[in-house]
Amino acid sequence: MRILLANDDGIYAPGIRALRKELQKLGDVTVVAPATEQSAAGHSVTLLTPLLVTEVYEDDGKTFIGWAVEGRPADCVKLALLELLPEPPDLVVSGLNAGSNAGINVLYSGTVAAAVEASFYHFTAIACSLEYTKNAQLDWPTAAAHARRVVEQILTHKPPRGSLFNVNIPPLERGPIRGVQVIPQNVSVYEEKFDRRVNPRGRTYFWSSPEFLCREPHPDTDVSALAEGFITVTPLQFDLTNHERLREMQSWQWPVTSGQ
Amino acid sequence: MRILLANDDGIYAPGIRALRKELQKLGDVTVVAPATEQSAAGHSVTLLTPLLVTEVYEDDGKTFIGWAVEGRPADCVKLALLELLPEPPDLVVSGLNAGSNAGINVLYSGTVAAAVEASFYHFTAIACSLEYTKNAQLDWPTAAAHARRVVEQILTHKPPRGSLFNVNIPPLERGPIRGVQVIPQNVSVYEEKFDRRVNPRGRTYFWSSPEFLCREPHPDTDVSALAEGFITVTPLQFDLTNHERLREMQSWQWPVTSGQ
Repeated sequence: MRILLANDDGIYAPGIRALRKELQKLGDVTVVAPATEQSAAGHSVTLLTPLLVTEVYEDDGKTFIGWAVEGRPADCVKLALLELLPEPPDLVVSGLNAGSNAGINVLYSGTVAAAVEASFYHFTAIACSLEYTKNAQLDWPTAAAHARRVVEQILTHKPPRGSLFNVNIPPLERGPIRGVQVIPQNVSVYEEKFDRRVNPRGRTYFWSSPEFLCREPHPDTDVSALAEGFITVTPLQFDLTNHERLREMQSWQWPVTSGQ
Repeated sequence: MRILLANDDGIYAPGIRALRKELQKLGDVTVVAPATEQSAAGHSVTLLTPLLVTEVYEDDGKTFIGWAVEGRPADCVKLALLELLPEPPDLVVSGLNAGSNAGINVLYSGTVAAAVEASFYHFTAIACSLEYTKNAQLDWPTAAAHARRVVEQILTHKPPRGSLFNVNIPPLERGPIRGVQVIPQNVSVYEEKFDRRVNPRGRTYFWSSPEFLCREPHPDTDVSALAEGFITVTPLQFDLTNHERLREMQSWQWPVTSGQ
């Protein structure tokens, strides 16, 4: 099995290094990942500047890992699929991200966007993220082993081409994992703050505050299950159409639009 | 009515200037938009660098337009709602974008992300984009009048709080608009290319090619209706869960995950 591995924390991040080692138990892994951290890059892509790429090797200088791309997570997947990989992959994995990508974070996440991009091209893709509590020491090898096992379990069900999954692993420092839940994305808003400051030249600026809390997640969603210590698996799709609303709206009358 | 207006082409772009004038027929418009072009920014947000803001005035130096933010489209909406606007808006509009945002472009689009962000916070939001043919002279005033009329028509149906719509206007240079279609997002992939080059230092880089064609859009989708000369209106949502697949997967067995 050929596996393309991407992420948004950058090709040298500990999460992708640990996940690469685990996925090598399942097949040949080629990494195409951003050269630098691209957290919260969402599904941005690079249209106006060039995408520089560099071959990356293990510390022995001989074992080929893949390519570092000076671009966004979705750029990496596009370039991998259209230009860099000699053969199409059987599976695309993104992660292992430092921080969960559950709830509306799915929309902000470069990790998830890399998987969505692969799904556009009808490749089966799995985004994997690890939640952690502030200042915790992260046990990447254990987290990556969990992610690999979930990937294996998904593959045993032979998902149809282009299937897309979002996997989150709960904080390992809080105790043993309670199991796996297949569960929908939470859609409630996060509580978020900015810190307003004035620079020495009198200009106002804002820092995004690190508190980003979902105080009341819906029960039976990824955010609540993750908080309860479960690994969450959410099948995703990228049709943003609100089909229920669409049906209601199709009876609306639209006066003919005539310029001014 | 208080209207917040954002975009991804930047606060000085002709599309947002024309749309502001039209929306002023419906209420008080405050613009909070990126200082510079942010096309294809997707739903990226700025976490690690400060967001500088500047008050922007009309050429008379007196009439307040709003704030330019050195950040992403979604940052603009967050800052507007949480920090900048003295009162919450009744409606959030994003656009008028130069280029359509239909099909999977909805995921790449900063214009749409600005509207999605407003919807996270339960504000009704409408993204508006104008398709055009290469080298065409764009008639922004006419396009903005079309967008304003569609916004008005949507509002007559008193959509529930948090409703989210994606509006695309077909190329005006191809002839009169044939009407309005309420229609789902196309989900098929685009044909896309990269131009591979080597820099004077021997390093490989890629340019994203401007050809980005959806050769076989599904019939009865935004992409096909737009090509046929219709204004498209697509109600959107931001739950990426594939609910049909979720139901199938809930019968899957997950062996207990036990570390290594």
